[in-house]
Amino acid sequence: MLKECFDNVRNTCPLVHNITNYVTVNDVANIILACGGSPIMSDEPEDVKEITAICGGLNINIGTLNKQTIEGMHVAAKVATEAGHPVLLDPVGAGASSLRTNTAIDIMDTYNPTCIRGNISEIKTLAKGSGTTKGVDADAADAVTPETLDKAVAFVKELAEKTNAIIAVTGAIDLVADKDKCYCIYNGRPEMGKITGTGCQLSGMMTAFLVANPDNMLEAAAAAVCAMGYAGEVGFAALKPGEGNSTYRNRIIDAIYNMTGDELEKGAKYEIR
Amino acid sequence: MLKECFDNVRNTCPLVHNITNYVTVNDVANIILACGGSPIMSDEPEDVKEITAICGGLNINIGTLNKQTIEGMHVAAKVATEAGHPVLLDPVGAGASSLRTNTAIDIMDTYNPTCIRGNISEIKTLAKGSGTTKGVDADAADAVTPETLDKAVAFVKELAEKTNAIIAVTGAIDLVADKDKCYCIYNGRPEMGKITGTGCQLSGMMTAFLVANPDNMLEAAAAAVCAMGYAGEVGFAALKPGEGNSTYRNRIIDAIYNMTGDELEKGAKYEIR
Amino acid sequence: MLKECFDNVRNTCPLVHNITNYVTVNDVANIILACGGSPIMSDEPEDVKEITAICGGLNINIGTLNKQTIEGMHVAAKVATEAGHPVLLDPVGAGASSLRTNTAIDIMDTYNPTCIRGNISEIKTLAKGSGTTKGVDADAADAVTPETLDKAVAFVKELAEKTNAIIAVTGAIDLVADKDKCYCIYNGRPEMGKITGTGCQLSGMMTAFLVANPDNMLEAAAAAVCAMGYAGEVGFAALKPGEGNSTYRNRIIDAIYNMTGDELEKGAKYEIR
Repeated sequence: MLKECFDNVRNTCPLVHNITNYVTVNDVANIILACGGSPIMSDEPEDVKEITAICGGLNINIGTLNKQTIEGMHVAAKVATEAGHPVLLDPVGAGASSLRTNTAIDIMDTYNPTCIRGNISEIKTLAKGSGTTKGVDADAADAVTPETLDKAVAFVKELAEKTNAIIAVTGAIDLVADKDKCYCIYNGRPEMGKITGTGCQLSGMMTAFLVANPDNMLEAAAAAVCAMGYAGEVGFAALKPGEGNSTYRNRIIDAIYNMTGDELEKGAKYEIR
Repeated sequence: MLKECFDNVRNTCPLVHNITNYVTVNDVANIILACGGSPIMSDEPEDVKEITAICGGLNINIGTLNKQTIEGMHVAAKVATEAGHPVLLDPVGAGASSLRTNTAIDIMDTYNPTCIRGNISEIKTLAKGSGTTKGVDADAADAVTPETLDKAVAFVKELAEKTNAIIAVTGAIDLVADKDKCYCIYNGRPEMGKITGTGCQLSGMMTAFLVANPDNMLEAAAAAVCAMGYAGEVGFAALKPGEGNSTYRNRIIDAIYNMTGDELEKGAKYEIR
Repeated sequence: MLKECFDNVRNTCPLVHNITNYVTVNDVANIILACGGSPIMSDEPEDVKEITAICGGLNINIGTLNKQTIEGMHVAAKVATEAGHPVLLDPVGAGASSLRTNTAIDIMDTYNPTCIRGNISEIKTLAKGSGTTKGVDADAADAVTPETLDKAVAFVKELAEKTNAIIAVTGAIDLVADKDKCYCIYNGRPEMGKITGTGCQLSGMMTAFLVANPDNMLEAAAAAVCAMGYAGEVGFAALKPGEGNSTYRNRIIDAIYNMTGDELEKGAKYEIR
């Protein structure tokens, strides 16, 4: 199943419109290319309407939002929703400022995105309508661990039901859920947190997976999370003495570039709850 | 001749003002440094006037244009043109949206840039005044192949005459032409299309080549295209098992950094029509 | 002492708010992570107030300033100053345009930043209130050399006294001074100048060092400069045949990632004047 989701990306080259932050945008573009998609970036309100119309899906990331790009997000989300394209929301830093929290909630409530992907603190902020995220990283108190897993699974399923969206929470254990079914994913390496933008990269890649698998979106989202985590393992194994987070970034994208559907199927570590 | 063009960049360290997209801007800066130039980025209308005045040339790339930066492009293009600096236009995504198409045509018509560099779909859009580009990649139906080469050469020469600009179309076969003479360049690797921004990088580097070779601009533009393609070959040969598009990006810039004029002369594969 | 400054960063994970240019922002984020800090980027005036409040320090870099982000810089600098957070100013390109010169001087005069870090031409521009910087690189005529060192040391001490800020001038010899004491630092490699943004990276990392060492800011700033220069040496030694400036960029960040306080203490080359 994961294999099929992955192969569908490679075989259909989904065009993904990204309104994303300028910190990690280059890596987002390269990982979308690496998995077999085609990225385009545009945030000017006057431009996004036509750009999103020619794409297959929309990735909205609020990492360096400003008033202009927020307007662009709304215009694009409206067009994409009306066209029936998958829309992914990555609420970077929701909980860290009112503008971020309110923008993310506004987009969530207005356009009913297909998928919302963030760390646990960001997702909790969206669920509660407010939060106390520490910058762009998850609050340690919120972490999903074996001890808190049952509660976390129930939380994401409930939020998925309430929002009618696929909820993807990434961290030490990743959760990808709709109201009935939750993938608990054990791929990945803690060192990925020392690279800026692995979450942003995943959001871009996940949008490509959603576009390429319209009839199987939950599995597609889970496949993207497994692929990212597995690439983190492959890339880490390839690190040579003296290499650190900057080279690790390249090796993860490289691992996606060289991954096959079969390898993903074998490398994925998950259970369904 | 190519050697001389390349050595002139290394020997004169041309200062290039770039108004370019935020997706690939870091790679553009690094490749300009790699070839021997010096990049500066500025897009605020109030800032660009003085910045462009102290530079030797201007690279305008509309990849993530917005209303503010479009204004900056106009101010900069006017100053650069009046100062007699080479101006290069990279119409990223022209044909994919009206704003992109109209902005590119407006700049082309108003300032008569020295050189226009894009993929075949973007360049056809400029020639026709409209188009149907698929995102930021060329439409397969437009591809320059051995079969369509004669027609494509005639097209770029004609457009060069009409626009009084050097026309550079990059793809499987690259074309660099003025009204009388067309370089058909066979360097490069198809895998370069899996890296975001190799075209943007080429535009930045090409601007440095134009500045450093004021009496020989057509050859300078062709030399930049050969250098990029040859670096793509050298970088590809240096890839180790498990490396992919992210590392390939670094290896291409590295190859430019280590390239000599003699190596370029030997590695370049082209014919003149 | 340098060891202690470095270990304090690793042990406290300072959160750094960056308003920085879109050219080198990804590398700034990765080097802050590499040294043990946590970066957040935000430039929208409405957003920066809350973001800077939750951070420990503020890094203002005017590399691609525009009217919106200048407003953001002012709002953030005011909040950070009132909160007693360290504020670092990196006046990229001051002297190259009036907007850059005036913005940098305005921030310097209004908020009394903790530290100002730039190349010698930029710092001279701030001292004189005007300048003739050649783009974003220092003017060769301004270079700090063994011959001009005495005069340069006197200049930075005087400026430190006048501005009540730590002055950090980076170049072939780096100077980090308050009014009484100047670190003259001999780490680094000339090839670092062929990578875009090593200065921007240093500013981001230095802000993390300032936050983590509130009682020892001069030494902390000097430690950051030594760490960057020493990483430049370690990264250069790790370069393999055919590697150039793009890979070198990764290897420097990697070297920071793997550096220990002890290694920094041993690798640092400086004298105090």
